[in-house]
Amino acid sequence: MDFSPPKVTLVIDKMTKTRELVEKSGYFALQVPNLDQLQMTFDVGTQSKVFTPDKLDKANVDLFRIDGHDSPLVAGCSAWLICQVIPEPHNQQTYDLFIGEVVGAWADTRVFKDGHWEFEKADPKWRSLHYVAGGHFYTIGEPAVVETRRRVIAMSGSNDLRLP
Amino acid sequence: MDFSPPKVTLVIDKMTKTRELVEKSGYFALQVPNLDQLQMTFDVGTQSKVFTPDKLDKANVDLFRIDGHDSPLVAGCSAWLICQVIPEPHNQQTYDLFIGEVVGAWADTRVFKDGHWEFEKADPKWRSLHYVAGGHFYTIGEPAVVETRRRVIAMSGSNDLRLP
Repeated sequence: MDFSPPKVTLVIDKMTKTRELVEKSGYFALQVPNLDQLQMTFDVGTQSKVFTPDKLDKANVDLFRIDGHDSPLVAGCSAWLICQVIPEPHNQQTYDLFIGEVVGAWADTRVFKDGHWEFEKADPKWRSLHYVAGGHFYTIGEPAVVETRRRVIAMSGSNDLRLP
Repeated sequence: MDFSPPKVTLVIDKMTKTRELVEKSGYFALQVPNLDQLQMTFDVGTQSKVFTPDKLDKANVDLFRIDGHDSPLVAGCSAWLICQVIPEPHNQQTYDLFIGEVVGAWADTRVFKDGHWEFEKADPKWRSLHYVAGGHFYTIGEPAVVETRRRVIAMSGSNDLRLP
């Protein structure tokens, strides 16, 4: 939601175990799952730790931590943001809406280099997942680049993805 | 951010003309631009109506309205949401953050049918645009589908997009 300092928003339902963990710790992590993690991403997102306390094990989630941070992160993701909650009780209660300031950011250099995503150069299993509903996701697609001088200069990747 | 009633969040910088228009009218529209609108999307997003009052004409934006709603919409997009601002002055001032309740939703049936996106069946020019930075976008990619019974059942589209 903001660049300086970087901030993000997040909605977490009161019914989730995640909500309790975020409120207790004052931190949350945002992570970018990829095609290689399709089933895991679905399983983690559709089961609750309230009813399935071992849901992370069942979904084969491998956690790791980064020095200086307590938040557990999911191995195999493409990128991770650790965020500190900016307490806004009204938003949290009324809208389940949390605002966080990014206090740490990392990415896998096999798909993110020099500050940029490189999905088109990486193995397709690194394509990020974007959930729709009912077990249906889309992966991220091909790049499209414009020149600031108002002309299309490049459309790499699939031959299908050209301007008509 | 919520399903019932559907609500969304949006960040609008105080420097923008859009901010003034949203605060005056109490409404905003969210629209899904596609590959066919690449240059227009970039031009509209990187110029300000404050300094370029005719930016919409310059970017060849064709506006239309839907009966019963005052918000102008951009022709050629894939989908449109008209949202009514839920006044939250603290969020708006401190974070430039607006919360809106969706009061109208429409989509082009050439790419959205029976409540679902059908990017894989439509002409590639309908692929949605996802901005990164510096004139670089990604289009949406291929579908990835999981079964609730924990098995991958289908990965249509490009042969590249299969689980390893």
